[in-house]
Amino acid sequence: MNNRKVGIIGVGHVGAHVAYSLAIQGIVDELVLADTDTARVESEYQDLLDALPHMPHRTRVSIGEYEDLADCDLIVNSAGHIELLLGSDDRSRELKFTIPAVHTWVDRVRKAGFDGVVLNISNPCDVVTREIAKSLGLPKGRVLGTGTGLDSARLVTQIVKKTNVDPNSIQAFMFGEHGNSMFAAWSCVTVNGLSIDEMAKQDPRWDFDRPEVEQLGRHGGWVTFSWKHATEYSISTTAARMVKAILHDEKILMPASTELNGEYGQRDVYAGVPCIIGKDGVERVVEFPLTQEELDKFNDSCNAIRANIKIADSL
Amino acid sequence: MNNRKVGIIGVGHVGAHVAYSLAIQGIVDELVLADTDTARVESEYQDLLDALPHMPHRTRVSIGEYEDLADCDLIVNSAGHIELLLGSDDRSRELKFTIPAVHTWVDRVRKAGFDGVVLNISNPCDVVTREIAKSLGLPKGRVLGTGTGLDSARLVTQIVKKTNVDPNSIQAFMFGEHGNSMFAAWSCVTVNGLSIDEMAKQDPRWDFDRPEVEQLGRHGGWVTFSWKHATEYSISTTAARMVKAILHDEKILMPASTELNGEYGQRDVYAGVPCIIGKDGVERVVEFPLTQEELDKFNDSCNAIRANIKIADSL
Amino acid sequence: MNNRKVGIIGVGHVGAHVAYSLAIQGIVDELVLADTDTARVESEYQDLLDALPHMPHRTRVSIGEYEDLADCDLIVNSAGHIELLLGSDDRSRELKFTIPAVHTWVDRVRKAGFDGVVLNISNPCDVVTREIAKSLGLPKGRVLGTGTGLDSARLVTQIVKKTNVDPNSIQAFMFGEHGNSMFAAWSCVTVNGLSIDEMAKQDPRWDFDRPEVEQLGRHGGWVTFSWKHATEYSISTTAARMVKAILHDEKILMPASTELNGEYGQRDVYAGVPCIIGKDGVERVVEFPLTQEELDKFNDSCNAIRANIKIADSL
Amino acid sequence: MNNRKVGIIGVGHVGAHVAYSLAIQGIVDELVLADTDTARVESEYQDLLDALPHMPHRTRVSIGEYEDLADCDLIVNSAGHIELLLGSDDRSRELKFTIPAVHTWVDRVRKAGFDGVVLNISNPCDVVTREIAKSLGLPKGRVLGTGTGLDSARLVTQIVKKTNVDPNSIQAFMFGEHGNSMFAAWSCVTVNGLSIDEMAKQDPRWDFDRPEVEQLGRHGGWVTFSWKHATEYSISTTAARMVKAILHDEKILMPASTELNGEYGQRDVYAGVPCIIGKDGVERVVEFPLTQEELDKFNDSCNAIRANIKIADSL
Repeated sequence: MNNRKVGIIGVGHVGAHVAYSLAIQGIVDELVLADTDTARVESEYQDLLDALPHMPHRTRVSIGEYEDLADCDLIVNSAGHIELLLGSDDRSRELKFTIPAVHTWVDRVRKAGFDGVVLNISNPCDVVTREIAKSLGLPKGRVLGTGTGLDSARLVTQIVKKTNVDPNSIQAFMFGEHGNSMFAAWSCVTVNGLSIDEMAKQDPRWDFDRPEVEQLGRHGGWVTFSWKHATEYSISTTAARMVKAILHDEKILMPASTELNGEYGQRDVYAGVPCIIGKDGVERVVEFPLTQEELDKFNDSCNAIRANIKIADSL
Repeated sequence: MNNRKVGIIGVGHVGAHVAYSLAIQGIVDELVLADTDTARVESEYQDLLDALPHMPHRTRVSIGEYEDLADCDLIVNSAGHIELLLGSDDRSRELKFTIPAVHTWVDRVRKAGFDGVVLNISNPCDVVTREIAKSLGLPKGRVLGTGTGLDSARLVTQIVKKTNVDPNSIQAFMFGEHGNSMFAAWSCVTVNGLSIDEMAKQDPRWDFDRPEVEQLGRHGGWVTFSWKHATEYSISTTAARMVKAILHDEKILMPASTELNGEYGQRDVYAGVPCIIGKDGVERVVEFPLTQEELDKFNDSCNAIRANIKIADSL
Repeated sequence: MNNRKVGIIGVGHVGAHVAYSLAIQGIVDELVLADTDTARVESEYQDLLDALPHMPHRTRVSIGEYEDLADCDLIVNSAGHIELLLGSDDRSRELKFTIPAVHTWVDRVRKAGFDGVVLNISNPCDVVTREIAKSLGLPKGRVLGTGTGLDSARLVTQIVKKTNVDPNSIQAFMFGEHGNSMFAAWSCVTVNGLSIDEMAKQDPRWDFDRPEVEQLGRHGGWVTFSWKHATEYSISTTAARMVKAILHDEKILMPASTELNGEYGQRDVYAGVPCIIGKDGVERVVEFPLTQEELDKFNDSCNAIRANIKIADSL
Repeated sequence: MNNRKVGIIGVGHVGAHVAYSLAIQGIVDELVLADTDTARVESEYQDLLDALPHMPHRTRVSIGEYEDLADCDLIVNSAGHIELLLGSDDRSRELKFTIPAVHTWVDRVRKAGFDGVVLNISNPCDVVTREIAKSLGLPKGRVLGTGTGLDSARLVTQIVKKTNVDPNSIQAFMFGEHGNSMFAAWSCVTVNGLSIDEMAKQDPRWDFDRPEVEQLGRHGGWVTFSWKHATEYSISTTAARMVKAILHDEKILMPASTELNGEYGQRDVYAGVPCIIGKDGVERVVEFPLTQEELDKFNDSCNAIRANIKIADSL
């Protein structure tokens, strides 16, 4: 019998919430929690366990070693050290922790025979995703990052606030770094295929201030972070959505951080772009016809990622 | 306490399946089944009742008179006589039954004080929707038809067969009559906002034969009908999706049959077009930039509906 | 990637509704429909396909040969000939069709290497379940029947009508034949563990006429059948519930038709009793402390099944 | 149109997680967050908002004043000060904060015309529930506490660990104080109606050490609390389950903290007992036939609650 098994590496705020979001939605059958901090993982494990009886689906949760993740369909990496971000608005500050953290587990998981998909959340997301992919040697696309998947949700949130249209009827993507250099590709935003320029002619609510909305979307995470020093529901719901797409081989089109090989004129970088996501992770990068200005922004953003890659490679 | 109450008029194949689809998805709290054929409604009622214990949500089902629908949030009209379609592929054949059928309940429901939304499924859908709206005198938009909502799903089904992309990532609409004159507005079909012309450059599966796909989509209902002399799952799932959008005030953009007042150059007709759907039914008709060829087809399709309106008005 | 694959043999009213119930609830990823009547299966397939775009989960449906079911996690057998029941209230009338029907597929499925679970719905359910089990030679428990799982739901339905308590808070089982000799084991009926005798002292609604309620539960299927000559929602929802329990290895306690090896004093018979149901089908028969009167009724019911087994073995 | 509106007072760890659990499960249409700490509520609000686009249902979230809760169907009270519990294992330590906290909102909500149900989570749960009920003057049953609803889930969790049976097939209740004096009523624990004594005869896994399992269940919250100084998933999932039962008028039987008027020989106290829960909150206290030893423990536990009531009344 095929049970859907997901491992979570790093059971802090983010990892534990991903576990909850997957379990409460019935997206997985089995969750394995792996964390070096025994007290933390036992606390989160107990809380999840005590939540299971009132959930609509049966899910099994356990604590495991990295080797126990070998037969997972998918591993989520959420090992981070978010305290490093205090007093900052720069996700790359975590790099000095998160890149070495990858190497505490990646060889063990590879040697144990893991042959599934890895979804990386740890920041700086694009750089850490690349580091995992490099180390695991799985087929292209099998290691992906949440990237601008979350930022695109934040952008949609702000558009919904202006227009009151259902978020599922809005297609809007942030491109590039899951970081300050990302940008909204307004030329591609549609309401179920209708350009927002056309929509704005019919409904003045769509004639909103795009730079303001973009900035609110970009900044959403920091609003959350400023008080609770973490983001929980937003990132875990995005990650759970991507896990669902992968486990059920949905072939949805949504943004993820993935390797570029010429798409949008970029190479040798992982960045957030719209992708077809299915059982093999990122199965295809989809190229939207960005304007020249957007392409320039994308190039700048990829360069910002490359700068961090350089630091990562030098660690 | 606000319970979500839906009435179903006409509990044949379609009406009973709408009831099931609503209940199994937990979209409603209370269903009232109204049908003049006592033996039929008791059979369907019993079958639904015996299904409830294994459903994930509690729903209450009862058999009622039209007056019992007065406090419903929404009424589904599915009173039809599908046997009239045998040996034919023309939904307007049912008109001589379905138009008079409206008048068996509409005054009783109005006099009982009904002030909700009516979703009409009965065929010819656009003409019957108009008849109900005319008779109930509710605010504009509160009476809508499933219209090309189902046909658009059929079109998406055929595109999925060619491309294997998730249906929720495809925006594709049939316009016009829920009948033979409808057409696919290819100029507006997108993959989460990317035109299919662009997509076809990147993935040859998207370079499919559009007239063939359109014809398969248009004809899907007849494939189903040819053997079982009914359509059940497809129409009920579309209707349930629309009920969900209305009861939860989603403001989704999807096609429905609604009154046109100048949109797409048409007046005095109900036809299938993309709409914003929320608690007040059709809250806005959205105008996509159709090509001239598509506008001509739409005009022809509206004229086909008008011809049936004429017959309906003469009954 | 582990996709959850279910095959359905016999895509009539029951089989097609099981497919819909599984798909709309997101219980499976892949459905294969197998039926010798090409026109019928294509009609049902098309209707299901056109329903998929408005479902909350992605499911893939295809038409297949019996050999295509080899790698299914689970096969549902619903090949029947319900017209044989017209003018009767005896499910064993179908036996002359359903037993030979088993032999049209069972060897082909076995030779193709099938190693999953079979859930039988075809009537007489207990006899057909035994026939499949005998022919497939899978480990004990891997072939089970819906048995009195549906009848217990019907019994609960009638108790809910009297008491208005949530069906999930009521434990009530029909035992024995999925047929006229089944009976309600009132001594074991509880409200979340509280005996109904105790409950009746506190709430007079629980002091209902038990023989009346039992008879209404037993007879529910015939009320449905009398008009539409089929049962659809009730049986498919019960079957879907069991499929969910098996695919997700739930280890729930609910009634199913399974082989008895001394439990309740019976051997060499398949009958409906409470079981632990998980990934290996019936993983344990649970013995409730029936009264002597109930044990006698159970013996009579098993003998009724044995009489049909004799006929089946002589075909 | 009837939208399901829930207000949350106190948007700390618990309140925010209740909001998430309700939204991700589609249990509500509208959430209003009320908290005196503006920075905190804006942080949690933003995080929830950014999670909405990837949820399967549309939910609206806003920040509001207590007066904005007037037309809610249900209010959750989760205003607490959990830091007061550090270094302790006694939930009553929060009393000096939580009782006065009730009076910051309860008159404003009453005067604004609130006429729904209040579900209290704040500790000491039984005492705070009574305080709210006293102050609001709603019909009996309309103010209830999560009480031993959560503790019963923790008990079930521990039984599942021993037996691997589905939690929904196990009926097990903690009675009394949501605090250290609570106890498991083993005489009433069943597996879908079968006593665990009987089950243990058939399956040795059920012959577990009951005092050990009870203590693990009682202590579960402290395992979670010891590291993260909060409980989140478990309490929010229990509360969401109760909200679902109330909004959908399920009439389920589960434990809640409610006023006793002679049941189990107790008066003038709120304590955790099995109840029928529906649109009017606790609609009936159900009396299980406890053993004399259990009745004595219940009396002791009620006295522990009464001691805290005395302190509360003297504040």
